Amino acid sequence: MVEDRLRGMDRATAGDGGQAVNNADRGQFMSQDVVIGIDGGGTKTRAVVVTVEGEFLGEALGPSSNFQVLGPEKMARVLGECIQQALEVAGRKDLRLRRISAGLAGVGRPSDRERALQAMRGLGFDAEYQVDSDAVAALTGAFAGGQGIIVIAGTGSICFGKGADGCVERSGGWGYLLGDEGSGYYIGQQAIIAALKDLDGRGPATQLRPALERRYGLERIDRIIPKVYQGEIDRTEIANLAPLVFQTAAQGDAVAQEVIQRAGEELGKLAAAVARRLTWSDKVVRVAPIGSLFRQIHVLAPHMERELRKAGVPFEMVSPMFDPAVGAALLGLEAEGITIDDSLCRKLAASVGSRTGGPRE
Amino acid sequence: MVEDRLRGMDRATAGDGGQAVNNADRGQFMSQDVVIGIDGGGTKTRAVVVTVEGEFLGEALGPSSNFQVLGPEKMARVLGECIQQALEVAGRKDLRLRRISAGLAGVGRPSDRERALQAMRGLGFDAEYQVDSDAVAALTGAFAGGQGIIVIAGTGSICFGKGADGCVERSGGWGYLLGDEGSGYYIGQQAIIAALKDLDGRGPATQLRPALERRYGLERIDRIIPKVYQGEIDRTEIANLAPLVFQTAAQGDAVAQEVIQRAGEELGKLAAAVARRLTWSDKVVRVAPIGSLFRQIHVLAPHMERELRKAGVPFEMVSPMFDPAVGAALLGLEAEGITIDDSLCRKLAASVGSRTGGPRE
Repeated sequence: MVEDRLRGMDRATAGDGGQAVNNADRGQFMSQDVVIGIDGGGTKTRAVVVTVEGEFLGEALGPSSNFQVLGPEKMARVLGECIQQALEVAGRKDLRLRRISAGLAGVGRPSDRERALQAMRGLGFDAEYQVDSDAVAALTGAFAGGQGIIVIAGTGSICFGKGADGCVERSGGWGYLLGDEGSGYYIGQQAIIAALKDLDGRGPATQLRPALERRYGLERIDRIIPKVYQGEIDRTEIANLAPLVFQTAAQGDAVAQEVIQRAGEELGKLAAAVARRLTWSDKVVRVAPIGSLFRQIHVLAPHMERELRKAGVPFEMVSPMFDPAVGAALLGLEAEGITIDDSLCRKLAASVGSRTGGPRE
Repeated sequence: MVEDRLRGMDRATAGDGGQAVNNADRGQFMSQDVVIGIDGGGTKTRAVVVTVEGEFLGEALGPSSNFQVLGPEKMARVLGECIQQALEVAGRKDLRLRRISAGLAGVGRPSDRERALQAMRGLGFDAEYQVDSDAVAALTGAFAGGQGIIVIAGTGSICFGKGADGCVERSGGWGYLLGDEGSGYYIGQQAIIAALKDLDGRGPATQLRPALERRYGLERIDRIIPKVYQGEIDRTEIANLAPLVFQTAAQGDAVAQEVIQRAGEELGKLAAAVARRLTWSDKVVRVAPIGSLFRQIHVLAPHMERELRKAGVPFEMVSPMFDPAVGAALLGLEAEGITIDDSLCRKLAASVGSRTGGPRE
C-alpha cells in the first residue's frame, strides 16, 4: 500500500532528502500532460499543477471561492484566475491541461456541485472538469487516497474518514449553533461564557475574564455581549480567541485548562465516532489533524488520544501526506485512469518538497 | 413585612377567599385616582388599571411592544392602544389617571429607556410616565416590592434578585450564543445536538432522534441542519421543542432525561449565584419561577433545589405574588408616594382574583 510505505515521510525527509528531483527543469522541451488541483475554501483558494507522472510543477493562491457566498459565476472567476496563474507559475509552454479537479467548500448538495461544474466549464479551458467537496479533497490528500481519518479544526470542526472498503464517513461539522465542538469557535465561545459565569458567580474565578477585558478594552466583561450580538466580535473573531485561551491555560488557569481539555476530548470524540463506524485493514488507523487549531497539537493530542483509545481502535496520529489542493489533483489523476501508486506518491512528495520546502498541512 | 404576611397566599386563597371585595362596583360614582401598569414584552403587551388604594380595575392585552424591534414610535402606539383599552375595560368614567408605569423589554440601556419615555409622553395622556425594565417589573410584582429571587425561563433564561438592602442583582440572560442556560432554547438545542450525536455515533442512541424526525418530516435527522441555519426552524421554534423533550424524558429516554436534568441544574445555578451575592433578612429566601418553561416545574424543581442547597442559602420555591404588569403598577404607586403595605397587597390580590380567577404567573 502506498500509504504504508509513505507513512514515515514527513517534512524533513520529503524536502531535504537527496531523492528530490526537480523534473520541471529537466523536461523543459517535452510536452507534458498535467492536471490542476484546486482547494477552494472560505478564506483562500489554492491551485496546483501536477503532471500525470506525479510531478508538482507549481501553485498559485487566490481569495475565497466559497460557492455559497459568491455564487457560481464569481466563484468560477476566482478559480479561473487562480488556474491561469498556476499554469504561468509552472513556467512551461508545452503543458497539455487534461483535467481541472476542484475540491470546493459549500457544495454539499449535488445540485450545488452541478451548478459549480457548469460555471467552471464556462471558463473555456480545453480540459475535463470535476468537482468534489473540500473535505473529500483533504481526505484524499492526507492519505494519498488511502485509509485514514482527518480531523479538521479551524473556526469550525469536522471529521472525515475513509475505510478499507473505500467508504467515507463523517462526524460533526453541524455549524456554530449545533456543532463545531472542539473548534476555535468552541474554545473562544466557552472562554467568553466562562468569564461571564465568573462575573455572575455561577462559575469559578478565571484569568480569562481580565484577559478578555484587556483584549477588547472592556470596562467589565459583560460589555462584550452587545459586541457579539451586533457582530463586532463575529464568529471568526471568537475563533481567533483560541490562542489567548491556550496562553491563559499555559499560565496555569484551571478554567482555561478545562476549556482546552474539553475541546481536545470533543475532537477525539469526532475521530473515535468515525473510527468505530468504518472497517480497517491497516493494523493502526492513521488520524491526521488539519487546520489552524492544531498549532497547539501538543496540548490537544493527549485529550484526543484518550477518547480514541476508548473507541478500541488502534491508531496513530500523523501529519497529512499532502494538502487538499494536491488531494484534488490526485482525484483528478485517478479520474484520468492514473494509478496512485508508491512511485507516483514519492515523486509527488519529493517535488512538492523541492518547490516549497516541504508538503503542506 | 408585606411579603411575610402574604407568603402563603396562592391562587385559591386570593381568588376564593371571602375577603374579596369588588370596589369597582361599589365606588361607581366616586372619582378614583388610578395608575396604569404595563408589561411590554416581545410577544405580548399587557396593561392593568390599579387604584391608589390597590384595587385592580381591569386589564387589556396587545401585541409585542419590544423597543428594539419596533422602535420608540411604533412601540408607543401599541402601548397607547393598550392603555386606552384597559381604561375602557375598567369601565368607570370618573377615573383620574395619575401615572403610567411601564416595564419594557429591550430598554437595558439608559439612553433607550429615555427614548422610550419620550415617545410615551407623546401619547398625550394627562399623567406622569415612567419606564423600567420588564425584569424589574417582574421582580417587583413577584414579591410586591420585597426580597426574593425570580428565575425567568421561556425562550431564554435570566435571573434577578432583590436583597434586604434593596440591591438588585442578576445572573444569566446573555442570549442564545453566550447564555440562556436552562431555557426552552437550551433544551431544544441540546435535544437536536443529542440527536445529531446519536447519528454520528458520538453520543448514545436516543428517542429524541425519531421524535424530531417525525416532528419535521425529516428523512434523516441531519436534514434539520439547513432548516436551522436558514431560519425555517428559528430560535422560538427551537424553544418550542421543550415539551417534546419533557415528553420523551417522561417516556424513559435517558438522553432526554439528562437534557432536562442539566436544564434544571442550570436554572438552579442562576438562582444560587444571585442568592450568594445578596444579603437577606428573611429566614428563607423566596425563589419564584416565572415563564412558560415552568409548566414543568415538578420536573425541574428537584434539580434546581439541589443547586440552591449547594449555595447554602435557606430557600423556598413560591409562586409569584403578582404578574409583571401589576409589578409595574406597584412601581407606579411607589413613585406616587403610596406605601405598598399589607392592606394594599391584600386588596390587590383579592381584586385581581375576583377579576380574573386568581393572580397571574
